[in-house]
Amino acid sequence: MGVEMSGNTFGKLFSVTSFGESHGPAVGCVVDGCPPGLALSVSDIQAELDRRRSLIETSLSYRNEPDQVEILSGIFQGRTTGTPIALLIRNQDRRASDFTRIDRVFRPGHGDYSYQAKYGIRDHRGGGRASARETVARVAAGAIARKWLNETYGTVIRGRVSQIGEMVIPLRDWEDATRDNFFLGDRNRVDDVAILLDHFRQSGDSIGCRLEIVADGVLPGWGEPVFDRLDADVAKAMMGINAVRGVEVGDGFAAVGQRGSEHGDEMSPEGFLSNHAGGVLGGISTGQPLVVSVAVKPTPSVHLPRRSVDVAGNPVVLRTRGKRDPCVGIRAVPIAEAMLAVVLMDHALRDRGQNGSVQESRMKAPFFRALA
Amino acid sequence: MGVEMSGNTFGKLFSVTSFGESHGPAVGCVVDGCPPGLALSVSDIQAELDRRRSLIETSLSYRNEPDQVEILSGIFQGRTTGTPIALLIRNQDRRASDFTRIDRVFRPGHGDYSYQAKYGIRDHRGGGRASARETVARVAAGAIARKWLNETYGTVIRGRVSQIGEMVIPLRDWEDATRDNFFLGDRNRVDDVAILLDHFRQSGDSIGCRLEIVADGVLPGWGEPVFDRLDADVAKAMMGINAVRGVEVGDGFAAVGQRGSEHGDEMSPEGFLSNHAGGVLGGISTGQPLVVSVAVKPTPSVHLPRRSVDVAGNPVVLRTRGKRDPCVGIRAVPIAEAMLAVVLMDHALRDRGQNGSVQESRMKAPFFRALA
Amino acid sequence: MGVEMSGNTFGKLFSVTSFGESHGPAVGCVVDGCPPGLALSVSDIQAELDRRRSLIETSLSYRNEPDQVEILSGIFQGRTTGTPIALLIRNQDRRASDFTRIDRVFRPGHGDYSYQAKYGIRDHRGGGRASARETVARVAAGAIARKWLNETYGTVIRGRVSQIGEMVIPLRDWEDATRDNFFLGDRNRVDDVAILLDHFRQSGDSIGCRLEIVADGVLPGWGEPVFDRLDADVAKAMMGINAVRGVEVGDGFAAVGQRGSEHGDEMSPEGFLSNHAGGVLGGISTGQPLVVSVAVKPTPSVHLPRRSVDVAGNPVVLRTRGKRDPCVGIRAVPIAEAMLAVVLMDHALRDRGQNGSVQESRMKAPFFRALA
Amino acid sequence: MGVEMSGNTFGKLFSVTSFGESHGPAVGCVVDGCPPGLALSVSDIQAELDRRRSLIETSLSYRNEPDQVEILSGIFQGRTTGTPIALLIRNQDRRASDFTRIDRVFRPGHGDYSYQAKYGIRDHRGGGRASARETVARVAAGAIARKWLNETYGTVIRGRVSQIGEMVIPLRDWEDATRDNFFLGDRNRVDDVAILLDHFRQSGDSIGCRLEIVADGVLPGWGEPVFDRLDADVAKAMMGINAVRGVEVGDGFAAVGQRGSEHGDEMSPEGFLSNHAGGVLGGISTGQPLVVSVAVKPTPSVHLPRRSVDVAGNPVVLRTRGKRDPCVGIRAVPIAEAMLAVVLMDHALRDRGQNGSVQESRMKAPFFRALA
Repeated sequence: MGVEMSGNTFGKLFSVTSFGESHGPAVGCVVDGCPPGLALSVSDIQAELDRRRSLIETSLSYRNEPDQVEILSGIFQGRTTGTPIALLIRNQDRRASDFTRIDRVFRPGHGDYSYQAKYGIRDHRGGGRASARETVARVAAGAIARKWLNETYGTVIRGRVSQIGEMVIPLRDWEDATRDNFFLGDRNRVDDVAILLDHFRQSGDSIGCRLEIVADGVLPGWGEPVFDRLDADVAKAMMGINAVRGVEVGDGFAAVGQRGSEHGDEMSPEGFLSNHAGGVLGGISTGQPLVVSVAVKPTPSVHLPRRSVDVAGNPVVLRTRGKRDPCVGIRAVPIAEAMLAVVLMDHALRDRGQNGSVQESRMKAPFFRALA
Repeated sequence: MGVEMSGNTFGKLFSVTSFGESHGPAVGCVVDGCPPGLALSVSDIQAELDRRRSLIETSLSYRNEPDQVEILSGIFQGRTTGTPIALLIRNQDRRASDFTRIDRVFRPGHGDYSYQAKYGIRDHRGGGRASARETVARVAAGAIARKWLNETYGTVIRGRVSQIGEMVIPLRDWEDATRDNFFLGDRNRVDDVAILLDHFRQSGDSIGCRLEIVADGVLPGWGEPVFDRLDADVAKAMMGINAVRGVEVGDGFAAVGQRGSEHGDEMSPEGFLSNHAGGVLGGISTGQPLVVSVAVKPTPSVHLPRRSVDVAGNPVVLRTRGKRDPCVGIRAVPIAEAMLAVVLMDHALRDRGQNGSVQESRMKAPFFRALA
Repeated sequence: MGVEMSGNTFGKLFSVTSFGESHGPAVGCVVDGCPPGLALSVSDIQAELDRRRSLIETSLSYRNEPDQVEILSGIFQGRTTGTPIALLIRNQDRRASDFTRIDRVFRPGHGDYSYQAKYGIRDHRGGGRASARETVARVAAGAIARKWLNETYGTVIRGRVSQIGEMVIPLRDWEDATRDNFFLGDRNRVDDVAILLDHFRQSGDSIGCRLEIVADGVLPGWGEPVFDRLDADVAKAMMGINAVRGVEVGDGFAAVGQRGSEHGDEMSPEGFLSNHAGGVLGGISTGQPLVVSVAVKPTPSVHLPRRSVDVAGNPVVLRTRGKRDPCVGIRAVPIAEAMLAVVLMDHALRDRGQNGSVQESRMKAPFFRALA
Repeated sequence: MGVEMSGNTFGKLFSVTSFGESHGPAVGCVVDGCPPGLALSVSDIQAELDRRRSLIETSLSYRNEPDQVEILSGIFQGRTTGTPIALLIRNQDRRASDFTRIDRVFRPGHGDYSYQAKYGIRDHRGGGRASARETVARVAAGAIARKWLNETYGTVIRGRVSQIGEMVIPLRDWEDATRDNFFLGDRNRVDDVAILLDHFRQSGDSIGCRLEIVADGVLPGWGEPVFDRLDADVAKAMMGINAVRGVEVGDGFAAVGQRGSEHGDEMSPEGFLSNHAGGVLGGISTGQPLVVSVAVKPTPSVHLPRRSVDVAGNPVVLRTRGKRDPCVGIRAVPIAEAMLAVVLMDHALRDRGQNGSVQESRMKAPFFRALA
């Protein structure tokens, strides 16, 4: 749902234009379309950036300073003015020495080869634009969306890791889904996961995971049929996160094995009686919680030998060195939350544009209130 | 990736603007951005429309005429001129009588309630704009994209039903994935599926299914990081199809349980050694087959009694009558193929816009040729 | 301000996608983003189409049937539903015989050569896509915008011919700006103009003219800095009309010779004391009347011999035959009004999207009410 | 032709997203869609920024440091990589003291009132977002477009002041159109203009002017009918520059008084015989020079007393103090050039996207070569 051609803008009315490479001077974004009057400070954004930093990243010596965001525009006397909000995060460590070995080879599972094919040139340092470093910009933008949604509609967006490899982690309590708990949602499983991650760290391999993102307080009526369905834009937002390979809304792939009499959510005067749809029908929100599930592939950089080629087409064997996240998907939790916030805010504003008068009356109708 | 606000346009350079309701005068679309000089006739489009009609639809008395497409513009002496191609398909049967019962109730699993919430008014006849009838327009537009891709790059797009309920159908032969074979890809399983569908038809219930869509002949370099990744736009296109609840690219959710040493596709001078990525790395095509999997929920209209409410909020019990597809996902195969074609053509043209000079040299390099 | 790449869509929230060639099967458009609940019938649109037909067009034998619009979608029980409104106008006369002579030559002052250069193919019949015939679609779309603006905000849009050649026609009364009066705004000058047009008709030549378009009842706050200023989008809309060569807002080019103490509109508690700005400051409407002036070039088709080349590059002499408007700009009045309506509606909705809460309070403030 | 809703992005394929306020931390932009491989350094951009600074600005004590641009992303080893290029220019002087008087009043001729109406809040310091300070971002982006166009197609874009008040300045030599010569294009008139400006400076008043911008080396085939005509996008780009009130392409308003036999440019095997059209027919470039004329209003800030109101609606009298440009339009020359460069580059790339294959053959045809 981005609107310019080269794909670095997401959102139509609330839109985020991202820039920056892993080892260039900075990453950041321009957030356009934010309504005026929202109280916004550096700390609102900084809190989300800190959540994004993985535990491994925090412990790494070469990037041990927190990401400091600077607001360059769009704020006056502590409030948004309706003009673009530019956010800047300097890259603290830009030592290129680590990357001399990868400038002429294509790492398996990375975008090295496809970038080279597309542009005929690539900034190989740390993965350049393809690095997860870029997601700092998304988390920063998402912090604004999250705050506006919460203050305007009471919307709350939460995410967690619901599965790592074969280990399924049922939700115990959303309060447990903190960064220190690997965003698990069950503090009692933290030790299990720590052991599992250590295992992969020591074996030099990595593992995939599944995330669950839920938005409560979504008003009915958000989403634009037919192409810009709310769930379609959510799917795009999630699949656009580095390493994501699958997206589900509501029951997702479980619906393949379900019957219509089971899947279709019945209604009563008090509201819906189930939520197999995950909060979206016909591409438009129903007012029920929006439930999204995401598959994240294992970190492609492993310490095991991997066959590849160099830019001249000669065979090589690669082996990544140094500290690496064995499960890169864990820190995607705040990124997925941020993208969901951006999608929801964009659609809330778009709905107000076309259906502003309906939006008002909608909230006054007793029945919709009951369901919402 | 549509570009206007209300979401009825898909694609940025090759863009499809859809219109029409199930029981209004017509459905259709305006296709903009098609390169000039493509030979295009009604029969090119009609063939795809015929594939889209389900066997049940063909056998139904009330809609037994084929969808006839008319080309209203953009063609001169049998070739595209570069100007918008408007496609019109009249709705043959518009008897509103069948729908008098549903104008004041919300059917479970349908968009009735969410449309009413959003717009405060809805065309309830046959589901109005939310009906799968609208997908005729997408299939018509996809026929153009499919032809252009094939003539320009040799791209071939194929889809099939790979699972119905618990019944998994491995691919035997793409030649078997015809409409008469329920798009199964294994002619030997047609009887099994016919029996299964009869079971659901008789029991009055319905069942979900899984589709597999594959594009061969995708050139490396298509897709725009970071938000408009090729896989992100595919995810949006697929999730934007009626009743789709999940999307996977490559190994999809199976990646949750995979290790990095397994998932990351190794390379050799002869090309990639596997295709876990499904043809996309860093959001950009690699030249390998693009592999997409989609979950379609069971038809929400069932003959069993379902609890719901009317527009005043009173409880009602609904029971759909008449012939219904027990597995609506089967006929989504040509729709998913069409949407994939639109995504690929849009990205091929966008890549040519920004990287036209690279595109040329890319294809001359021996190594990329080997991989492609 | 259109949003897809090939330029046949105008507007972002209220968007019009146009299609059709002069002598193809039809012209028309898809209007997306219209708020639901607007009462809309064929006659609302037909009235504007009839105004667009020039007197000469009406009198011509080969196109003597009125343009009949058909609404294909988006209306239910006489009201808009919020889904796309497709409008279709069949081309009544498509005899290609008249055009056999121009298929291989480039007419001076027409788009023949530039279309051929761009696309390598062109529909030469009647000018194809470059024909003013296409503006039927814009007038049809504008009729919707005009009605919505008037019902929602009381906005009134009027246009007239203020100069033909050297003949300046001051406004006597907007009531006089009817089609029968050549849209002059002074019924006493109709005879003068008729004589002037006869002169050009007989001499085989043509003449340019100037139009004045005014919108009353524009609310303050419409327009998006910095690129999508209200006046910038008006300029694009006007310059995008066939044969328009210049656009002014407010005093326009007269401002070149003005002093700051003269041009800058002073304010008092009762409102602005003048309107040199033409209703826009900083790209945002002030609530004063929006005043636009447009230069239309003389009809390029004249009965005098003109030098040109054929598609092979050989010199030729061309001479148009048959009835022609000697001043094509006259019938651009309803087109310019329509485009202004589309721009205003689009911006009104966009403003509501981002600034919906401000929009409300704005109208309650005594001072803004006085100024508006 | 910007593509997100709030209007801070210009261009669809080559797109510029601008941010920043006059007295905020910085102004800048994100340039997306630039082809990879273009050699680009800070000095390429800095040269244009220096041209933009007016002589009065240079001489002013409070802003006597040059605007220093920093490239934050998108460049690797001195070349563009195809990823977004973020450009940052810090605001050197941000003393708010000068502006305490204008925070509660609306200056005549400025956007103060309309911004307040739209957003309910405004950054009044130096005009905030409405300040011409923002145009630094456009000039920076334009420097990239200018370089790419010149290296790829030999396109040269030049601008000058052709009239100040009643003083018309015919072109003597483009070499004379330097910043030190007030961009006049006639070094012999510099003293006359200096005297005129001194007169207005001393009298405390200001004056409007007219600019002429010409692009040579425009290829035929750029521009997208029907709404995104090349001239329509030029009109939007120019009217979107602060203080511009009118735009002409080719003969512009002079066409009102011309006959068809005079205005329509004849052609011969050697090319066009005149250029009344200004290089655009049917919205598509012809290969002739693109000629644009622009009216800039007088500086609204004058030293003479002006009536206005404060935010509570009380009458006030305002009188600007301190040094001011008496003719603000002079320094708009590099801004208008920059915007023309952005429009042309965007359309060149868009044409390549849809018509890439035609583009190639076009240039090989002897006839088109002769005309181009």
